[in-house]
Amino acid sequence: MKTYIETNKQRFFDELFSILRIPSISSAAERKPDMLKCAERLAELLREAGADRAEVCPTSGHPVVFGSRFVDESWPTVLVYGHYDVQPVDPLELWKSDPFEPEIRDGAIYARGANDDKGQLFMHIKAFEYLVREGKLRHNVKFLFEGEEEIGSPSLAAWAEKNRELLKADVILVSDTTMISESVPSINCGMRGLSYVEVKVTGPDKDLHSGHYGGAVANPINVLCDMISSLIDGDGRITVKGFYDDVVELSDEDRMKLSRAPFDLGEYKDFLGIREVKGEKGYTTLERTGIRPSLDVNGIWGGYTGEGAKTVLPSEAYAKISMRLVPNQDSAKITELFSEHFKSIAPDYVSVEITPHHGGNGFLIPISSPAYQAASRAMAEVYGIEPVPSRGGGSIPVLADLQRILGIDPLLMGFGLERDTIHSPNESYLLKQLFSGMEAISLFYKYFEKK
Amino acid sequence: MKTYIETNKQRFFDELFSILRIPSISSAAERKPDMLKCAERLAELLREAGADRAEVCPTSGHPVVFGSRFVDESWPTVLVYGHYDVQPVDPLELWKSDPFEPEIRDGAIYARGANDDKGQLFMHIKAFEYLVREGKLRHNVKFLFEGEEEIGSPSLAAWAEKNRELLKADVILVSDTTMISESVPSINCGMRGLSYVEVKVTGPDKDLHSGHYGGAVANPINVLCDMISSLIDGDGRITVKGFYDDVVELSDEDRMKLSRAPFDLGEYKDFLGIREVKGEKGYTTLERTGIRPSLDVNGIWGGYTGEGAKTVLPSEAYAKISMRLVPNQDSAKITELFSEHFKSIAPDYVSVEITPHHGGNGFLIPISSPAYQAASRAMAEVYGIEPVPSRGGGSIPVLADLQRILGIDPLLMGFGLERDTIHSPNESYLLKQLFSGMEAISLFYKYFEKK
Repeated sequence: MKTYIETNKQRFFDELFSILRIPSISSAAERKPDMLKCAERLAELLREAGADRAEVCPTSGHPVVFGSRFVDESWPTVLVYGHYDVQPVDPLELWKSDPFEPEIRDGAIYARGANDDKGQLFMHIKAFEYLVREGKLRHNVKFLFEGEEEIGSPSLAAWAEKNRELLKADVILVSDTTMISESVPSINCGMRGLSYVEVKVTGPDKDLHSGHYGGAVANPINVLCDMISSLIDGDGRITVKGFYDDVVELSDEDRMKLSRAPFDLGEYKDFLGIREVKGEKGYTTLERTGIRPSLDVNGIWGGYTGEGAKTVLPSEAYAKISMRLVPNQDSAKITELFSEHFKSIAPDYVSVEITPHHGGNGFLIPISSPAYQAASRAMAEVYGIEPVPSRGGGSIPVLADLQRILGIDPLLMGFGLERDTIHSPNESYLLKQLFSGMEAISLFYKYFEKK
Repeated sequence: MKTYIETNKQRFFDELFSILRIPSISSAAERKPDMLKCAERLAELLREAGADRAEVCPTSGHPVVFGSRFVDESWPTVLVYGHYDVQPVDPLELWKSDPFEPEIRDGAIYARGANDDKGQLFMHIKAFEYLVREGKLRHNVKFLFEGEEEIGSPSLAAWAEKNRELLKADVILVSDTTMISESVPSINCGMRGLSYVEVKVTGPDKDLHSGHYGGAVANPINVLCDMISSLIDGDGRITVKGFYDDVVELSDEDRMKLSRAPFDLGEYKDFLGIREVKGEKGYTTLERTGIRPSLDVNGIWGGYTGEGAKTVLPSEAYAKISMRLVPNQDSAKITELFSEHFKSIAPDYVSVEITPHHGGNGFLIPISSPAYQAASRAMAEVYGIEPVPSRGGGSIPVLADLQRILGIDPLLMGFGLERDTIHSPNESYLLKQLFSGMEAISLFYKYFEKK
């Protein structure tokens, strides 16, 4: 496929940039027209690449793009999943170039979505186009691109339930994750689940002057800090009652296998600019993000946050809190346990409201599966070494849903790198990974046979 | 003075509203022109009221308005202090009417600054005007209105040092505080000081995806919450090392005197909409805000605070933290102690920056002073009962500075009420208090003689 990439490179850039330019931020209500525009452009790209069917399908939220080329019942069928929605871009001032005007610098594309997931889903469209145009396609291919992954895929499960027949396949192929490093390819065989809630702590029913009331009236910010602080104990364990009940402890043998993944703590700390790592006692850094659940405050706000000083004792304080879950933990149950616990620790002098945002369960796929084996051969051929099976810390809750609804295992063949800083300013995607990914995906088709 | 008020009421409203309409928010850089406009309008009002001198004086920050009517060296001289700057107005959506378009509803003026301090300083201008026009003035009067009280008066002390002669007086008369209730007049004979800092906690050097890193990398919001939570112990005492060293414990007798102030805990809780009060163990609510120091988070922010959910593990978290101090605690020393303590409790996996905002010392004035006695007689005549000496929780740090620089005691004859919700949305000032205040101030002049 190398020659094909070389010949078509400029067109590839033009096409990819045309979708990167659309600010398809799913969490921002005012971006609704951009969501549709992006979906329509993707359907167009699928048709141009060789899909005989490509449509924008309404859901209860942002639309789904479905495309397919179905030739022969006897051929294996690959369902490609991706998402065209992106994260918000704030803090905007930290971006070196416009997040929605892609720029190539130092061998990488810089734009929101350059990697997550527009860049990665684009590799699938181009690998498919290559196989079609060169007459090498021996698979039925279906594309399912959703527009709500970054907000927890609230509509896709219901849409998939209604379209089980349409989505029937032998594997769900996904590129929405990272490799261990540029030189260490890896295939993600498990992802953490997610429970995400917003909490509100209310003290007095109006903002007060901190001079007149400070010391006599509980300050909801101080109380929220107390409550958040109590959620993780001195050993780095989450104190929510019942939180670990369903967590399966891994065997020493399994932990040994996972520890094969190369990892340099010094490099890791340097990359993040931190002096020390911090996490649950008794587990390594990779285990803490791979096989152990975690709890993070994703956002906090309350009181006066503007320029200068305001001596206010505020009425309300807020936080967005998320928990990453491991397989066997149920997202809905954890959300419930968290809510009960958080209410139970609220002192008398405040009231608490909890709003669940979204969530999903984790999952695990067998290394022995034909899809894993095909991906492994494909990546080995492109990178020159056998990829490492890894466990991912991030969540693609919808994949656990699709697995349950369609009865098909997802395979996570991701080409992102840590350096891409997805969800952060200056998201990027290395051209090298973009092109290696296209090549590896085209080889996946070569090696993947129906089980 | 009642008849004079009745005759001139509409003009009084027009004049007061003309200054309330100017958005003189001292903390907002873009309001600089409004600050000047407000100062000029005040100088104009002073001249019209009978000042033979009224000028806008530049300082290193927002200008000071100085006005005076100096007639006879042998007369006692009153220095009126007030401030024309106001607090920010956010959250704007909670205001029932435009904060800078005053409205009279249910017997009160609603506007930012209606009480604090434009409404209260206006009473002094009108009491002065009455005495001048009726030929009853037997005092030299000086007016000092600053534009930086809400940001900690960074420039006034230096300006006062340079203008000691100009400011020479027998008393500093201030209306910038509240009475205990509408039916219980009080005179504030002490105020708490203030130390106000902004803290920044930095974890990783960029925002991270909480799925990829959550559990392995310290989240600066969680760490900030831990640190804030540790600042107050289970007994409601501040844990900053050395914090209480200079606090003078009051004698049982003094505590008894202060407890004379009528106080109904049920009403207090109802007014604030809280089920329980919270504060330092072993002290009453009035003591907690009057004679004991306190610590409050005035603002907190970090991570994603927009609509919906973003799974970010942020790089930075911020808080504005203020401490109210009692007389004998030194603001600069406390800021230093806080900074040292906060740095000392920062774990290895984060770094901490501390920016002092502003501060000032508390002060106490003798009840036996001629000024206190004159104020007491004046208020008793207007309200029909003797005012209660009280201790205020709020800070007017600059008064401690003026007391030190000029060697004159300040007298806090405030007419605000709790219901006025200064610093909050829908700040108001009762017309009844506005007019009673004018009357009481005119009577103060009647009873105040040089000591």
